[in-house]
Amino acid sequence: MNRSDIESASRRIHERYSHFIRQTPVIKLPGAALGVNCAEVWLKLEHLQVGGSFKARGMLNRLLANPIPASGVIVASGGNAGIATAAAARALGVSCEVFVPTVCVEAKRAKLRELGAQVVVTGAVYAEALQACLARQQQSGALLTHAYDQPEVVAGAGTLALELEAQAGVPDSVLVSVGGGGLIAGIAAWFGQRARVVALEPELAPTLHSSRAAGHQVEVAVSGVAADSLGAKRLGDIAWEVTQRHVHDALLLSDEAIRAAQLWLWKEMKLAVEPAAALPLAALQTGRYGPRSDEKVCLVLCGANLDPATLA
Amino acid sequence: MNRSDIESASRRIHERYSHFIRQTPVIKLPGAALGVNCAEVWLKLEHLQVGGSFKARGMLNRLLANPIPASGVIVASGGNAGIATAAAARALGVSCEVFVPTVCVEAKRAKLRELGAQVVVTGAVYAEALQACLARQQQSGALLTHAYDQPEVVAGAGTLALELEAQAGVPDSVLVSVGGGGLIAGIAAWFGQRARVVALEPELAPTLHSSRAAGHQVEVAVSGVAADSLGAKRLGDIAWEVTQRHVHDALLLSDEAIRAAQLWLWKEMKLAVEPAAALPLAALQTGRYGPRSDEKVCLVLCGANLDPATLA
Repeated sequence: MNRSDIESASRRIHERYSHFIRQTPVIKLPGAALGVNCAEVWLKLEHLQVGGSFKARGMLNRLLANPIPASGVIVASGGNAGIATAAAARALGVSCEVFVPTVCVEAKRAKLRELGAQVVVTGAVYAEALQACLARQQQSGALLTHAYDQPEVVAGAGTLALELEAQAGVPDSVLVSVGGGGLIAGIAAWFGQRARVVALEPELAPTLHSSRAAGHQVEVAVSGVAADSLGAKRLGDIAWEVTQRHVHDALLLSDEAIRAAQLWLWKEMKLAVEPAAALPLAALQTGRYGPRSDEKVCLVLCGANLDPATLA
Repeated sequence: MNRSDIESASRRIHERYSHFIRQTPVIKLPGAALGVNCAEVWLKLEHLQVGGSFKARGMLNRLLANPIPASGVIVASGGNAGIATAAAARALGVSCEVFVPTVCVEAKRAKLRELGAQVVVTGAVYAEALQACLARQQQSGALLTHAYDQPEVVAGAGTLALELEAQAGVPDSVLVSVGGGGLIAGIAAWFGQRARVVALEPELAPTLHSSRAAGHQVEVAVSGVAADSLGAKRLGDIAWEVTQRHVHDALLLSDEAIRAAQLWLWKEMKLAVEPAAALPLAALQTGRYGPRSDEKVCLVLCGANLDPATLA
């Protein structure tokens, strides 16, 4: 995973699908506006991406980089990865099957159907839906997308960093939430040593933090307010390889701090984001990450798939 | 009201208060992304302005352009104008009294108090609160801000258009919601004949539309989903003068169309805006405003003071 993979992904996406993938805005604020002692805070509003999260970048790149069989595309996910795969498949005019467990709420199933996906509800938990998805893929030969651990998916996520640099320059540091690690792997691969890339995880889903402590990938229990999108139990292989080289630190945040930052973003900025997107601000506002006073810190707001009533 | 008034307002604001007034982002999309047959739709995300609406621009300009007595600043408003005045007063470190009627809900009073304002609850309806506010101003000598009909307030609103031009160029048309007309007056004064400025009003609050039909300012009854912020009963004198010269048309929209556009912005764009901010999109999506196929249309999203539960 390197810069040229990400440049290729960006070219592939923008050659024919710049009407689908959005260039998401960056807001630059003085640190004081967020109660933080640093020169600038940049907010990368990636929660305004099509499908409501950064995932569309990686899924579209995966679909464009591979021949798509007549059986179409297949994925197991009731969350952002499923939505992004369905949206990308629709943009390309190919069929899409999404496997979700019975715990997946009807609102999410309806959203997937609206995007033209065929929704297969099977298994009590995600692992069972995944198993059924893989069995079906073996039989149908459909192109499988993985939420975070495929090279095209990581390179697609990395286009966020390429875009940020073109819009705003290179920040001193980039704060990124980590679930399976696809987003941080793409961002870290793009910036390399040019920016300090810092990983943020919920205390209740410490996938990367625990792996770094153990010196190898470990499986962790996951729960808490952000488990919906940061609830991968194990870091992706690509993310493990890239983060060992390029990620400076992996910090943990309490659910209370995450929720407070989410509410702050709504109340003070009118940005409606899901809990997973609030970890970067939580790290600044709790002091868990302490920038230098002259530092320019970029916070990646990664998703907005939330029930707005939770902000009231 | 002319371009140099707006340039002066912009200089005044940015000389010392660029940490307070935000440069709000512009998103450019192909018309097709919104189901509209035009070249580009630009979304000016002014609902992300400090205080959650464009009003902060005008109120800060009003405060900076005048000497502020020891008795501070005074305003009658339980809505965006009150919030913006209180926020601007706090930024300048001066005291602020806000008069609201008893119908003003506790959440809004609490928001004003959080901003450091002294909230005076008096009168059953807005007109009575205003009367009490004016009587108090006579006695205290405090600097009065008006929601839309003061030159500094209109010029401040116009800085939105100056900023838009610097960010994105001059669009072919700009679609703007109208209540008392402060925002459209500022925008129309900036662009003049260089862009087609189109006014949008709820059928249930047709202040400008009715005045144009009558050939003079008339008082109208106001109600409906956007009355909270577009519920002025009479167009401001400044707005009447400017819109006669520079506004091409004043179109009316049903509450159903406004509400549908508001929900579309949330569902498809993850932008949480108040009903008043959805009129420009409603005009496009209903065909009430029909752009040329090569047109670049800018929609001004003017505010985000809403209960997020209403989006669920």
